[in-house]
Amino acid sequence: MYILNLNNSMPQKTNSNRRNFIRNVSLGSLAAITLPSLVSGTAKEVQAKKITLKKNAVVLFQGDSITDSGRKKDQSTPNNAGSLGNGYAFLAAATLLKQFPDLNLQIFNKGISGNKVYQLAERWEEDCLKIQPDVLSILIGVNDFWHTLTGNYKGTIKTYQDDFTALLDRTKQKLPAVQLVIGEPFAVIGVKAVDEKWYPAFNDYRAAAKEIATKYDAVFIPYQTIFDKAQKIAPGSYWTGDGVHPSIAGAELMAASWVETVKK
Amino acid sequence: MYILNLNNSMPQKTNSNRRNFIRNVSLGSLAAITLPSLVSGTAKEVQAKKITLKKNAVVLFQGDSITDSGRKKDQSTPNNAGSLGNGYAFLAAATLLKQFPDLNLQIFNKGISGNKVYQLAERWEEDCLKIQPDVLSILIGVNDFWHTLTGNYKGTIKTYQDDFTALLDRTKQKLPAVQLVIGEPFAVIGVKAVDEKWYPAFNDYRAAAKEIATKYDAVFIPYQTIFDKAQKIAPGSYWTGDGVHPSIAGAELMAASWVETVKK
Repeated sequence: MYILNLNNSMPQKTNSNRRNFIRNVSLGSLAAITLPSLVSGTAKEVQAKKITLKKNAVVLFQGDSITDSGRKKDQSTPNNAGSLGNGYAFLAAATLLKQFPDLNLQIFNKGISGNKVYQLAERWEEDCLKIQPDVLSILIGVNDFWHTLTGNYKGTIKTYQDDFTALLDRTKQKLPAVQLVIGEPFAVIGVKAVDEKWYPAFNDYRAAAKEIATKYDAVFIPYQTIFDKAQKIAPGSYWTGDGVHPSIAGAELMAASWVETVKK
Repeated sequence: MYILNLNNSMPQKTNSNRRNFIRNVSLGSLAAITLPSLVSGTAKEVQAKKITLKKNAVVLFQGDSITDSGRKKDQSTPNNAGSLGNGYAFLAAATLLKQFPDLNLQIFNKGISGNKVYQLAERWEEDCLKIQPDVLSILIGVNDFWHTLTGNYKGTIKTYQDDFTALLDRTKQKLPAVQLVIGEPFAVIGVKAVDEKWYPAFNDYRAAAKEIATKYDAVFIPYQTIFDKAQKIAPGSYWTGDGVHPSIAGAELMAASWVETVKK
């Protein structure tokens, strides 16, 4: 049995007594928590570092299906509802474009469903380097773990770390001034696809993403923490349909935390 | 020649002197305006009346293409990215679902491109009354005018008023407790489809929507005023591609003003 440890938000193996204790703590603190404070509180804790958006800045969202969110692959123009999909990238774009109308932002989404890090690498020239983003946001890792459970993928946590590091080395070499945003891979335990097989193993991918963010001086968005805290107000199934893909509410939660990373 | 009158935001016929005078006033007040204040300022001015969202509330967005925004007509479940499209209804839904996770809101979009009021009436039983909304948001009118310019439609301002009034009488009879939100039809002059032929005639549709909102005790959202003010920060073409359909930034501007109508 695994439960959420409220201190570091990493689900841990535990015994029943500790579980009940933490459940009580969780219930006790429930009343004081409101959602705006969840998002901004989390953002404030973790995001001392901020993104600066300059005039004509190019913002690129990269990742897997969570970023993709049904975007139309035949549409490549920035700031376009079709090309941005209907997930957190679109929602963040909408807020950014409304908040910074004087900046002429160019916002792209190039997430592709099912991608692991090595698949980003395969299309990086076309789908990142050529776009020359000023701000590059990457959320990747859930499939690097998930696909090892569903059978076909043999990559390990070391593969994830090495591939991600190589990708960022390559990016920094070509785009030395790029501002990086790295999102924490997340998986909401107990909701459909995400069962006990995920933890504690999946925590390694979360920790790796955070370490890599630090190493590359990236803004780190603690999505797992954000989803864990949100479950104190509504169940996991409200924020994600299957434990991996956010609902509209979950996507907006992510978008709001993304926008919080931008210097006002 | 028509320009925007800053006092009532209704574009007026004017002579050159008055135009220059008002242009100067407009430039003079430019520096002090920021977008957040535009939205909330406008909302505060006009929306003394608020919407109350109760547990399990059903919220229905109705209208034409601006509401439709590419929603998938074969999807009818609430709170679904496909069925909500990618316009202001989806963006407002995302914010509402994030802000009120404890309410179990059920949010629908049944806008259909090209609709005029009489076409809402034709599908009202299925696309409104059966859904039994607690909150019904209607944005309709731009086609009731536009299609008289493009040739085929013979309806007048009286047709719009009479059809809209009949629709709301019918709605109130079946759903006496429904909370109404009526959006001001808007058209951003100088951007593509919206030329001088629109004004001042189109102002009558805006005024009619406002009068009807007052008559039926609806929250009124002054979208034209919101778009007019937004143009002091970025050109009209930033907020709408063709003068009628909002860009992502414009849709978010609308969504933010919609969400402002909800009692916190």
